[in-house]
Amino acid sequence: MAKLGFLGLGIMGYPMARNLRRKGHELWVWSHTRAKAERLASEEGAVACGSPKEVAAQVECVFVCVGDTEMSRGVILGPGGVIEGAEAGLVVVDCSTISPLVSAEINRQLEAKGVEMLDAPVTGSKAGAESGTLTFMVGGKREIFERVRPYLEAMGTQFFYCGGPGMGLRVKVVQNLIQANILQAFNEGMVLAVKAGVDPNLLLEVINNTGARSNLVAAKGPNVLRRDFSTHFSTKWMYKDLGLALELAAHVRVPIPGTALTHQIFQAALAKGWSEEDYSSTIKVLEEIAGVVVQG
Amino acid sequence: MAKLGFLGLGIMGYPMARNLRRKGHELWVWSHTRAKAERLASEEGAVACGSPKEVAAQVECVFVCVGDTEMSRGVILGPGGVIEGAEAGLVVVDCSTISPLVSAEINRQLEAKGVEMLDAPVTGSKAGAESGTLTFMVGGKREIFERVRPYLEAMGTQFFYCGGPGMGLRVKVVQNLIQANILQAFNEGMVLAVKAGVDPNLLLEVINNTGARSNLVAAKGPNVLRRDFSTHFSTKWMYKDLGLALELAAHVRVPIPGTALTHQIFQAALAKGWSEEDYSSTIKVLEEIAGVVVQG
Repeated sequence: MAKLGFLGLGIMGYPMARNLRRKGHELWVWSHTRAKAERLASEEGAVACGSPKEVAAQVECVFVCVGDTEMSRGVILGPGGVIEGAEAGLVVVDCSTISPLVSAEINRQLEAKGVEMLDAPVTGSKAGAESGTLTFMVGGKREIFERVRPYLEAMGTQFFYCGGPGMGLRVKVVQNLIQANILQAFNEGMVLAVKAGVDPNLLLEVINNTGARSNLVAAKGPNVLRRDFSTHFSTKWMYKDLGLALELAAHVRVPIPGTALTHQIFQAALAKGWSEEDYSSTIKVLEEIAGVVVQG
Repeated sequence: MAKLGFLGLGIMGYPMARNLRRKGHELWVWSHTRAKAERLASEEGAVACGSPKEVAAQVECVFVCVGDTEMSRGVILGPGGVIEGAEAGLVVVDCSTISPLVSAEINRQLEAKGVEMLDAPVTGSKAGAESGTLTFMVGGKREIFERVRPYLEAMGTQFFYCGGPGMGLRVKVVQNLIQANILQAFNEGMVLAVKAGVDPNLLLEVINNTGARSNLVAAKGPNVLRRDFSTHFSTKWMYKDLGLALELAAHVRVPIPGTALTHQIFQAALAKGWSEEDYSSTIKVLEEIAGVVVQG
């Protein structure tokens, strides 16, 4: 069994860390909210630490799962960060969905100290984190990926090696861009149909049984018709990920106008105060404008 | 066995009519291109007629499958049209994808002459028409739908009764709007990823195995990577259907900004002269702008 670290014990990180611990690995943990680390310590026998630096000093591989680019940079390179406690040979696996460009820069700075790093963002939401059935998209050196793969298998069931530093994040950001735009396609079609007199249950059945079918709408559509917007993945986080897609697109000079439009719709949802709801609640933006409610 | 008519023997209509004939129904047919009617007459034993009026005078139920709203109106209500040959009790089943608003108006004019009508647009493309596995979305009186359902079952396997006149078309138009927007989502994501250095085969595999999966991309994605844009459903027809969605949205006052954007991208594809290719070829619009080619 290995000595592992986990930094960031939020809605995704907590169950991921727990799954590592339950495979029998020794686990040192830190979270911005100290109580989460202490809870994992008392419930699962992890060791709660006072800083990322402390964790890094104890382990051979440390996972990071935080909310955004600046948090990731701070936890890894900031004061009290991983880099201060790291010895050469440590592996950092950053599972956060952050800027692929910044991630590659963090990777370079760690490499200069002899520390290895992978970007390994996940998809599968809270349910996948809890059941250990996440999908990992991995960027970095392939041999480092193979070395840590047994640990990833405690948390996920599907693994895509995507190429060098930042490539896992590129794939993740594009995968999320597609999901957000599919949702916007559904929102437009559903609100239009309902205002034009179509039964929403019927429309959902047609969508789910024709070429218009998507995994996303098959999963979220029934919840929308029940007006259940409880959070599997929040509007706030998808908005952030659309911003990452736009940043990447600006960097490589590719126009993604539909994505820019969806990003603005999500911005409208934030303006309405719906940032913490599931991102399927963005249908309410169109509903409010059109003066119609989609209800099954 | 019934006496049936079929008007419009194009890429969809010809195999649909053939499937009706092969169930043993007597079949009177007309097509704008006379040679198509004569071919069906000689190959399948249908009766080729000189006008929609002649067909309507012989049959109890006549199917229409033409390209756009004005063709449908002309074939049914124009000089030499169905309405001139129709006796009270005739049933007109319009399988064309046309304006739901105009279709409901045609329905009213037929009703005034005692002629019944259904809008019954289909999905399933050429392959579904040939194999008799189309999906029908039906608007009009439910009892008329039940009366002609045995004939529809010669051509399709899935039937959605959607409500009164024009409701089948509303569902069809929305279903196509969603497909076109899903394609645009894929196009943006794929072109961005490839220009950012991601292997397109890998990205397609990730899409097809995560929440970003859609029936459309699962079916068309491999063809795109092979640069095979042979036509299953042409850009020209999807462009027309997006126009129908925008017309409906204007009528009921629902903003569908993503659809308007996708419509403009399709307009760019028409400007480039790609109207007859499969609509998956719209990815070339972004590719040309971004200066990259997606090839697996």
